[in-house]
Amino acid sequence: MNLDQIFNTAQEAFLFYKNISGKEKAAFLDTIAETLEANREEIVPLAVEESNLPEGRINGELGRTVGQIRLFAGLVREGSWLEATVDPADPNRQPLPKADIRRMLSPLGPVVVFGASNFPLAFSTAGGDTISALAAGCPVIYKAHPAHPETSKKIADCIHQAILKSSLPSGIFSHVEGGIDIGQELVKHPLAKAVGFTGSHKGGKALFDLANQREEPIPVYAEMGSVNPIFCFKDKLANQLEPLAKAFVGSLTLGVGQFCTNPGLIFVPKSQAKAFEKAISDELNDIASAPMLHPGIAQAYYDSIQYLQSREELRWVKVADPQHLINGSTALAEIKASDWLKDLVFQKEVFGAFAMMVVYENQDELLEIAKQLHGQLTITIWAENHELQDQLFLLNLLEEKCGRLLFKGVPTGVEVGFAMQHGGPYPSTTDARGTSVGAYAIKRFARPIAFQDMPQELLPDALKDGNPLGIWRMVNGEYKK
Amino acid sequence: MNLDQIFNTAQEAFLFYKNISGKEKAAFLDTIAETLEANREEIVPLAVEESNLPEGRINGELGRTVGQIRLFAGLVREGSWLEATVDPADPNRQPLPKADIRRMLSPLGPVVVFGASNFPLAFSTAGGDTISALAAGCPVIYKAHPAHPETSKKIADCIHQAILKSSLPSGIFSHVEGGIDIGQELVKHPLAKAVGFTGSHKGGKALFDLANQREEPIPVYAEMGSVNPIFCFKDKLANQLEPLAKAFVGSLTLGVGQFCTNPGLIFVPKSQAKAFEKAISDELNDIASAPMLHPGIAQAYYDSIQYLQSREELRWVKVADPQHLINGSTALAEIKASDWLKDLVFQKEVFGAFAMMVVYENQDELLEIAKQLHGQLTITIWAENHELQDQLFLLNLLEEKCGRLLFKGVPTGVEVGFAMQHGGPYPSTTDARGTSVGAYAIKRFARPIAFQDMPQELLPDALKDGNPLGIWRMVNGEYKK
Repeated sequence: MNLDQIFNTAQEAFLFYKNISGKEKAAFLDTIAETLEANREEIVPLAVEESNLPEGRINGELGRTVGQIRLFAGLVREGSWLEATVDPADPNRQPLPKADIRRMLSPLGPVVVFGASNFPLAFSTAGGDTISALAAGCPVIYKAHPAHPETSKKIADCIHQAILKSSLPSGIFSHVEGGIDIGQELVKHPLAKAVGFTGSHKGGKALFDLANQREEPIPVYAEMGSVNPIFCFKDKLANQLEPLAKAFVGSLTLGVGQFCTNPGLIFVPKSQAKAFEKAISDELNDIASAPMLHPGIAQAYYDSIQYLQSREELRWVKVADPQHLINGSTALAEIKASDWLKDLVFQKEVFGAFAMMVVYENQDELLEIAKQLHGQLTITIWAENHELQDQLFLLNLLEEKCGRLLFKGVPTGVEVGFAMQHGGPYPSTTDARGTSVGAYAIKRFARPIAFQDMPQELLPDALKDGNPLGIWRMVNGEYKK
Repeated sequence: MNLDQIFNTAQEAFLFYKNISGKEKAAFLDTIAETLEANREEIVPLAVEESNLPEGRINGELGRTVGQIRLFAGLVREGSWLEATVDPADPNRQPLPKADIRRMLSPLGPVVVFGASNFPLAFSTAGGDTISALAAGCPVIYKAHPAHPETSKKIADCIHQAILKSSLPSGIFSHVEGGIDIGQELVKHPLAKAVGFTGSHKGGKALFDLANQREEPIPVYAEMGSVNPIFCFKDKLANQLEPLAKAFVGSLTLGVGQFCTNPGLIFVPKSQAKAFEKAISDELNDIASAPMLHPGIAQAYYDSIQYLQSREELRWVKVADPQHLINGSTALAEIKASDWLKDLVFQKEVFGAFAMMVVYENQDELLEIAKQLHGQLTITIWAENHELQDQLFLLNLLEEKCGRLLFKGVPTGVEVGFAMQHGGPYPSTTDARGTSVGAYAIKRFARPIAFQDMPQELLPDALKDGNPLGIWRMVNGEYKK
C-alpha cells in the first residue's frame, strides 16, 4: 500500500473504531498485551541483538510495555477518562429556555507515531504513544525506527494478530518502514491528525515545524530529552555524601546514560564540592564501559565530549575514552556556576553517561541558575527539609521549568501510573500540556465535542440519561457516578 | 512602562499570584464582577458608541460577562478543576519500592489576550479569555482592540480597581494599546507563555505562526470564526417550513450577522428548496438594515459579496445593498451542491448577514459535502428523528468537522456552562483541544506538573494528605472527595 492507501484505510477504520465500546477497546488492548507475552521468547533476543541492551533490561522493558498496555485497557474499560459532562435543559429558564448540552472527549483521528532508539519496546511500536492513541480511539500509523527494524516488525505482527483476533479493521494499525523523507510524508498527510514522537531535539523540532506549516496544523507531542538537573544543598550532601554519590552515578550510567531522564547536570555547593566529586569519581571508576545503542549514537557522544574538551571553563574529572567507539564510557567535568551561567551551550544535552558538575557559591547564583535554566522533563532537589524552609521562591522558579519535581531518589525509573507527568516545558517537549507516560497520555489524542439537544438514542453511551456506563460524569457542575 | 517592564512585572506577580488559594482567586474575580456591575451606567454607553450595537444587546452582554466571571469564580473556589491526582508510595513493592507521586494542573505564566471587535465586553478586556487565564492563576497582558478603545480602558480600570481592593500585585493585569506591531511584540516576548485570541482567520493564523517560530514555541488559542453550516432534511423542512425559516433568518441576522456562530451556509434538499427559499426570503424582507461594528467591517462585507456576485454559479435571492456602507443589509444566494463542491472558496466565511443556500440532490452529495467540509465551530442538523436512523456514517463525518453539533435550534446564543465547547477543528480555531466559552476554558492556561516525594508541608494544598481543600481527586486510580 502507498501512503494514501494507508491513510485512507486508517480513516475508514477510524469511523468504525471510534464507536466501539470502551470494553471492546480494552479487550483489544489486553489481546495485544497477551500476544506480546506469548511472543516473549522471540521478541527479547531480537531487541537485545538490535539495541545492544542486556537481556535483563529488555525482559524488564517488555514487562513494562505489557503493564502499560494493561493500564490503558483498565482506563478505557472504566471509561471516566472521557470527561463526560452534562448540562441538562431548562425549558422554563427566563428570559430564554436553556438547551440540553453534553460534552465528552472524542478521538482525533489517525495518529502518526515515531518510536525511540533507546526503548525498543516501551517507547516504540507498541509503546506508550501507540497504545494511548489506540486507547483513545485513534488508528496509528507507526514509523519503524531504523535502529531496531526486526524488533519493530515482530511487534507489529503481534498487534496485527491481536486486531485479527478481535475482529477489528486492519486499518487501525499500520507499520511503515523508511527514512526521514517517509516520516515527513506521514506528518504532512492531510488525514494525519496528531503526531507522537520520542527522540532527538533536532528530529522532534523538525516534525513540529512541518506539522505547523501544514494547511491544517496538527498537534505534535515530541518528547525530546532533557538534562534533568539535580540541585544539591549543603546539609543534605554533608549528611549523605556516599549514598547520594552512589545514587547519582547509578542514575547517570543506567542504560549507558541513554535515558531521557538521565541526570546530566548537578549543582553542588562549593563547601561540599571537593568531597562529593571524590565520592562520585570513586563510584564512576567502578562502572565498566558498555556498548551504546548503535555506533552513530556513540559517535555523537564522543563528538560532544570533544567539543566540551575544547572549552577551558571545564575541568575534567574523568574523560570518556573513545578508543572503542561503540562503548559509551562515563565522563564527568566540573565548572564554576559563574562560568556555566555565561553560555547556554552548557545546558545542551549530551546523550550518554556524561555529567557536568556545576559548583555554586551562594543563594544568588542558585536563583540565577533557576532563572536561566531551560525547560526540563525533571528537576531533582536534594535538600534536608529545614534547608527548604526559606526557598519558596527558588521552588517556584524550578516548578516553572519542569514537568516533574523530585525531592528524593533519582529521575530515571519513570513510574507508569495515574499521577506521572513525563513531559515538560520546551525544549524538553514541544507541548508541555501532554505526558508520554502514564494514564493522562490518552488525553493527548482526543478533543472535546459538545452535543446540543441530541436525541437520546443517538447520544454516545457516555452521555446518555441514566449513565448506562456507570462512569464519573459532571452533571450540572457536580461530579456524579 | 515598556513591554519588557510590563512582562517582568507580570512574571514577578505570577510567582506570587499562582500560589494564592482558589478562594482568594475567586474573591478577586467576584470583585471584578461587582466592579463591572457598579460601573454599568458608564460602560454601556461607551460600548454602544464604539460598537454601533444597540443598548439592549450591550446591557445583555455585560450581564453575560459578569455571569461568566462568576462561573470561573465558582470553579476555582470549588477547586476540583485542578485534576489533583495522588499515587501514594508503596515502600514494600517488589522488585523496587514505589515513590509517592502527586500531579495537578499548574498555571502557564503570563498570557497575552487579544479581544474581539464583535463582543466589546464578553470576548474582550474582561471577557472569557482574560478571566479564564486569571482564574487559572496566570497574569494577563491584554491588547486593547482598536475598535473600542475607550470601552477597553474603562473595563481595564475596573479590573485595576478590583486588584487594588483585593491587595494583589498590579502586574497580574496590564492593558496595552497599539497597532499590529505591538501585538506581534507581545506574542514574541520570551516571558509570554500562551495567547488567547478572537478574531479573523488572517489575524489568528499570523499570531499562531509567530508563536511557533519563537525560540520557545507557545500555545495559541485563536478562535477565528466559522460558517456554521445547517444540514436540512426533507421531512423536517416539510413539517416546519416557516418556523425553521424564521429561526434561520433570526440567527443569520442577529447582531447584523456579526457572530462567530452565525450560520452562513445551509444545505437544503432539492424537493424543499423552492418553498424554503420563499419562506426565508419573506423573513429577510422584514429585517431592516442596521449599522455594522465599524466601516472597515462593512467594507469587507460588501467586497466579499461583490466577489461572489462575479461567480456565475450563484443565483441571488437577495443582494446586499452597499448604498449606505455602514449598514450591513442582508443577502442570500443559492447554489447547486455539485457547483459548491467544486470550489473551496464557497466555504469561506463572509462576516455579516449573508448566507449561501446549497441545494443538494441526494445522499451521495450530502456525504461528499460532509467529507469536503472544513472544520467548524458548530454544525446544526435539522431532521426528524426517523430521518437520522440510517445516517450514522454522515453523523460520524460531521462530528469530525466541528466542536458542537446541534439537533435543534440555531448555533448563535452560545450557552456559558460546564458542557459548552466553543472551539473546533482548524480553520475554526488553531487548537481544537480548547474552548473559549464555558468552564473548561480554564484548562487552556494550565499544564500538569508532578511532585515526587515532596515533603507534606511544601505540597500545594490540593495534593496534601487528608485533602484539606475537600476537592475531587483521583487517588490510586479512583475518584474520591
